[in-house]
Amino acid sequence: MTTVGDLGEFGLIARLTAALPPHGGVVLGVGDDAALLDVGNATRLLVATCDAQVEGTHFRLTSATPEEIGRRVLAVNLSDIAAMGGIPQFALISLLVPLDMDVAVLDGIYAGLRAEATQFGVAIVGGNVARSERLVLDITLLGSVARAGALRRDGAHAGDALLVTGTLGAAAAGLRLLEDPTLAARLAAWDCQPLLAAQRTPVPRVAAGQWLARHGATAALDVSDGLAADLAHLCAASGVGAVVQAAALPISVATKAVAMELGVVPEDLALFGGEDYELLFTVPAEIADELAENMLAEIEIPVTVIGHIQAEGGLELARMGQKVPLAPKGWDHLRATHTTE
Amino acid sequence: MTTVGDLGEFGLIARLTAALPPHGGVVLGVGDDAALLDVGNATRLLVATCDAQVEGTHFRLTSATPEEIGRRVLAVNLSDIAAMGGIPQFALISLLVPLDMDVAVLDGIYAGLRAEATQFGVAIVGGNVARSERLVLDITLLGSVARAGALRRDGAHAGDALLVTGTLGAAAAGLRLLEDPTLAARLAAWDCQPLLAAQRTPVPRVAAGQWLARHGATAALDVSDGLAADLAHLCAASGVGAVVQAAALPISVATKAVAMELGVVPEDLALFGGEDYELLFTVPAEIADELAENMLAEIEIPVTVIGHIQAEGGLELARMGQKVPLAPKGWDHLRATHTTE
Repeated sequence: MTTVGDLGEFGLIARLTAALPPHGGVVLGVGDDAALLDVGNATRLLVATCDAQVEGTHFRLTSATPEEIGRRVLAVNLSDIAAMGGIPQFALISLLVPLDMDVAVLDGIYAGLRAEATQFGVAIVGGNVARSERLVLDITLLGSVARAGALRRDGAHAGDALLVTGTLGAAAAGLRLLEDPTLAARLAAWDCQPLLAAQRTPVPRVAAGQWLARHGATAALDVSDGLAADLAHLCAASGVGAVVQAAALPISVATKAVAMELGVVPEDLALFGGEDYELLFTVPAEIADELAENMLAEIEIPVTVIGHIQAEGGLELARMGQKVPLAPKGWDHLRATHTTE
Repeated sequence: MTTVGDLGEFGLIARLTAALPPHGGVVLGVGDDAALLDVGNATRLLVATCDAQVEGTHFRLTSATPEEIGRRVLAVNLSDIAAMGGIPQFALISLLVPLDMDVAVLDGIYAGLRAEATQFGVAIVGGNVARSERLVLDITLLGSVARAGALRRDGAHAGDALLVTGTLGAAAAGLRLLEDPTLAARLAAWDCQPLLAAQRTPVPRVAAGQWLARHGATAALDVSDGLAADLAHLCAASGVGAVVQAAALPISVATKAVAMELGVVPEDLALFGGEDYELLFTVPAEIADELAENMLAEIEIPVTVIGHIQAEGGLELARMGQKVPLAPKGWDHLRATHTTE
């Protein structure tokens, strides 16, 4: 017998979605951050994504407030719409809930959901409830994107520059702080706070995605499983390889301080940490520097060139003039561990 | 402390969706079988619904094949699109799965999902997987409906005739057969088979919904919680009451045979059984009989006039010239019992 755990997340998805027949309305189906669907709008496509988050696996009621959890479950879906360059519009929420759960906790979670939805212009238009041993929030998010302008994973070309918004590794550092209070006690509160916020209430890069869709990004996805794993997804979809410059990785001094306390290389948090919900994207090399300047100037989002795309497959990490293979390690939700695909 | 179980399904939904702000794109939000959304198509609206089904609560791996379970989880969502008069188009599937589950079971469930999707012209365009103690399939289904033609719960008027497609109570009778093998042994296999099929693989009334949207139905919903409970939903949305003629309820002889073996009144299975996934709808009284004839002739779906709408609130059951109050009992997923709202 082969179990779900034997296959792992990506093996299972590949197996279950292998035989899907074509359909006239599907512009882009399973395999990107969101689907692109033709719903009869002359200029725009529907963008659709869903993501289930399970108490104890994706969030803990003990390490964030109900409001923070509510914001986060929607933010994770907003990040997928952002990664397509889309405008988020409508959410459906499936709630699986233990019968003995205090309704006040759910009130808080929904207050957070509504606040995040309102901030990003999203209407909650449907849902359902059922009972379950553990709290699960499964959100389907719908939005729209210009027919010609959607960001996809499969558009990167050899020679393109590789960029990322914001910083990397902060959410992973924040998770370590939540898991080990003695670690937090060895750092200043003002250094811990932004790392905890990155873990508890990530800010989806919705404005950045829309900006990139208008300014010539060739491929994009959001960094949810970890930079290395997600870069591997982008390269696989585009049929290319990539080189990451270790020294260029945008890592905050607070994240570096956590890494130092943990005795790990800061790059490891940035490359394999996951849950950053930043956008990883490619642009033609000749416009990369100017685009980064303009993005900061126009929408106040810092962007860093961290490497480039190459024709040969595989990922490499360049450090002090040497290139070494970069393992596409990432988080596998069905193995509950970091795995190499 | 107030728990989720204290509030019940409908109390919880009302509480969590009470404060939703208006949004320009939402033509119809929470409260009907599906949401109606303006996505920039000049003539049509997007129809969106989601429904999570939990192993042990909504289906059992021991009483249906994996293929049947796959068909059923999609059929339940198709029924919601049918109840709006919509054409189903796209599905997103969230899968929560135990790590030790045999992948062959999932292969079977997805084979059933794909077969049902293919039959109804639906493309599976996205999804996600996460681990969980119990198998959960949460499906979001998207479709379209003519802007002016959507069936809704809130359009019934005093004097309208009340009709239902197909028969009532068969799924409930099938459930009793599954729960008690000695009951099945007392009946003929050919009488059990259609009842078991009604429970395991209900056929969503997609063609009927589209036909009704074109032929002047004033209100509609699908019978998922049970006729009495769902009729109460329709009446509450429309601000009316209703009278059901007990003698007119369409109950198959096989369902009656099960009721007799159980020692219950057949009407009870029809009124309170649930999971029929038939369409309950209203039309102006003067066209009711002709509409029923035409529906049978044109799309081969039997329809029965079972009562009428009245201005006064409340449900009544008319039996042998007497009217008695009809309790709006139905299934509450958070109480796991039949309750009166």
